[in-house]
Amino acid sequence: MNFPSKLIEEAVNEISRLPGIGKKTALRLALHLLKQPETISENLTEAILKLRKETTYCKICHNISDQEICAICNGPRREHQLICVVEDIPDVLAIENTSQYTGLYHVLGGVISPIQGIGPDELKIDSLFQRISSPHKDEPVLEVILALPSTMEGDTTSFYITRKLKEKGVKVSTIARGIPIGGELEFTDEITLGRSILTRVNYNID
Amino acid sequence: MNFPSKLIEEAVNEISRLPGIGKKTALRLALHLLKQPETISENLTEAILKLRKETTYCKICHNISDQEICAICNGPRREHQLICVVEDIPDVLAIENTSQYTGLYHVLGGVISPIQGIGPDELKIDSLFQRISSPHKDEPVLEVILALPSTMEGDTTSFYITRKLKEKGVKVSTIARGIPIGGELEFTDEITLGRSILTRVNYNID
Repeated sequence: MNFPSKLIEEAVNEISRLPGIGKKTALRLALHLLKQPETISENLTEAILKLRKETTYCKICHNISDQEICAICNGPRREHQLICVVEDIPDVLAIENTSQYTGLYHVLGGVISPIQGIGPDELKIDSLFQRISSPHKDEPVLEVILALPSTMEGDTTSFYITRKLKEKGVKVSTIARGIPIGGELEFTDEITLGRSILTRVNYNID
Repeated sequence: MNFPSKLIEEAVNEISRLPGIGKKTALRLALHLLKQPETISENLTEAILKLRKETTYCKICHNISDQEICAICNGPRREHQLICVVEDIPDVLAIENTSQYTGLYHVLGGVISPIQGIGPDELKIDSLFQRISSPHKDEPVLEVILALPSTMEGDTTSFYITRKLKEKGVKVSTIARGIPIGGELEFTDEITLGRSILTRVNYNID
């Protein structure tokens, strides 16, 4: 693509570095910003720079946080005996938005992937074991819930964590896999459907 | 959506102001920037701010330009008797990328749309007529090519410009509409197919 100006060429190049944004979309975004008042661009760039330079992570659960220890880890109404292990920050947001979970989190920052050269040392796994040995607020951790992706890498990570936690005598559970609420049997893939039969639960009507 | 930090909330709000980017995509982009080196965010924001603050427009054709008069309007190899009228800047880029056109451009900055309150005075239409009365480089304009969208607004704008230009004795043409190269007849909409028969051209084999 030939650009009529060096400025727009540089802006398009930088914007198209973002994931999922190609040159054409980047051009559309750049031209949009040109048509808007200058404050729109100023606010956007200021918010991005502030985010990148000032964001800190909770030193306990490694989620994004404004303070040294995040609002969830310090939450007085949170169940401190329960830790949910997730791959990354969006997973915390997704679970929080269900309003169904009142325990704590632990963000690994990825999953074990020998192909990509990611071993347990590249992830926040050791700090999970430390949390269990010496818990914040001195409440012992009774259960660790694994909410990792059901991929080979996710399963490997779950297996690794489970083996280590069993040695420490902590109960380990994993989130239920099955047919989504409202999902139809005939359109569900065989693996999910098969597993949902094998891992059936008691039907309580009391 | 609840965010774990004010910084990420503000970044997501600002990024999701961009067209076609919702809150979830904005969050994905923000988290991507957090994982990248700080220079990526710095280069991105610098390019955007520079674009917004320093971009100038060619005072003849209103395309984006680094100089007061753009490289196309000042081009020694350009046909200055030919002006192609387009709705906006991406259209110039699209036509330039074909390498089939060697004339000049005129960017209207939109099309006439009474519903949105855009009349001829809101667009760069008067400056098109001025270009024809007193051309840059003193070469008379012999033909104006209309390359506006084939919508009601585009047709209205084409009609308005054509009527005014006929008074000045300038030849007006419009880009050919028809079946795209490689397009199949049976999958073409009726309006395009019908028009392509009405506006058929001589088949030259010499």
